[in-house]
Amino acid sequence: MNPKRCAACKYLRRRCPKDCIFSPYFPPSDPDKFACIHRIYGAGNVSKMLQQLPVQSRAEAVESLSFEAKCRVEDPVYGCVGMISLLQTQIQKTQTLLAKTQAEIAVAQAKHSQTQVNEFM
Amino acid sequence: MNPKRCAACKYLRRRCPKDCIFSPYFPPSDPDKFACIHRIYGAGNVSKMLQQLPVQSRAEAVESLSFEAKCRVEDPVYGCVGMISLLQTQIQKTQTLLAKTQAEIAVAQAKHSQTQVNEFM
Repeated sequence: MNPKRCAACKYLRRRCPKDCIFSPYFPPSDPDKFACIHRIYGAGNVSKMLQQLPVQSRAEAVESLSFEAKCRVEDPVYGCVGMISLLQTQIQKTQTLLAKTQAEIAVAQAKHSQTQVNEFM
Repeated sequence: MNPKRCAACKYLRRRCPKDCIFSPYFPPSDPDKFACIHRIYGAGNVSKMLQQLPVQSRAEAVESLSFEAKCRVEDPVYGCVGMISLLQTQIQKTQTLLAKTQAEIAVAQAKHSQTQVNEFM
């Protein structure tokens, strides 16, 4: 067995080929990263998805797939879609607060103008 | 062939059993929903994920998995994680605007107070 097998080949108990599609993105030091992605997508699907991408996009694809897989393991019902809902709620709250604050500034400016008018009368 | 097979069994070219795990969530009227989820996760993984969930959570799990699969088909590099990044950027922008507006209100209130002080002098 090659001790330098990538985490994916080690997990799949296979020889790590020189042109292994997983090896650049799954170092042996982080076995959980592959275990998680394998549990959600399956090694075959991940390999297929990576093969369909240009080499320079694969690292980012692996990161986003790992993130989604981790979210799905932690929250099997909503996965990272639960995070999207939370962020959308947060945006709505912040926008409501912003609108309220902008209304307050309009009131404060109106009061200030009124005071100036009173000074001239 | 049973013409009432669910979209999953039709796609997988198999008989749709009475207790089909896919059937409640993949009506034959929406074949793309299963095709998309199958392309990203594979039927076996989806079936396994659903089996591990209580029946009352499965519909929502299918919706979130479908959403993620659709995002991944549309954006094979970032999937719905791209959406999370966009939403986080939007929150940061809104929060910056909110802080700016809150600073403006403080300035306007200070001006208003100063005008009132001047009136009494």
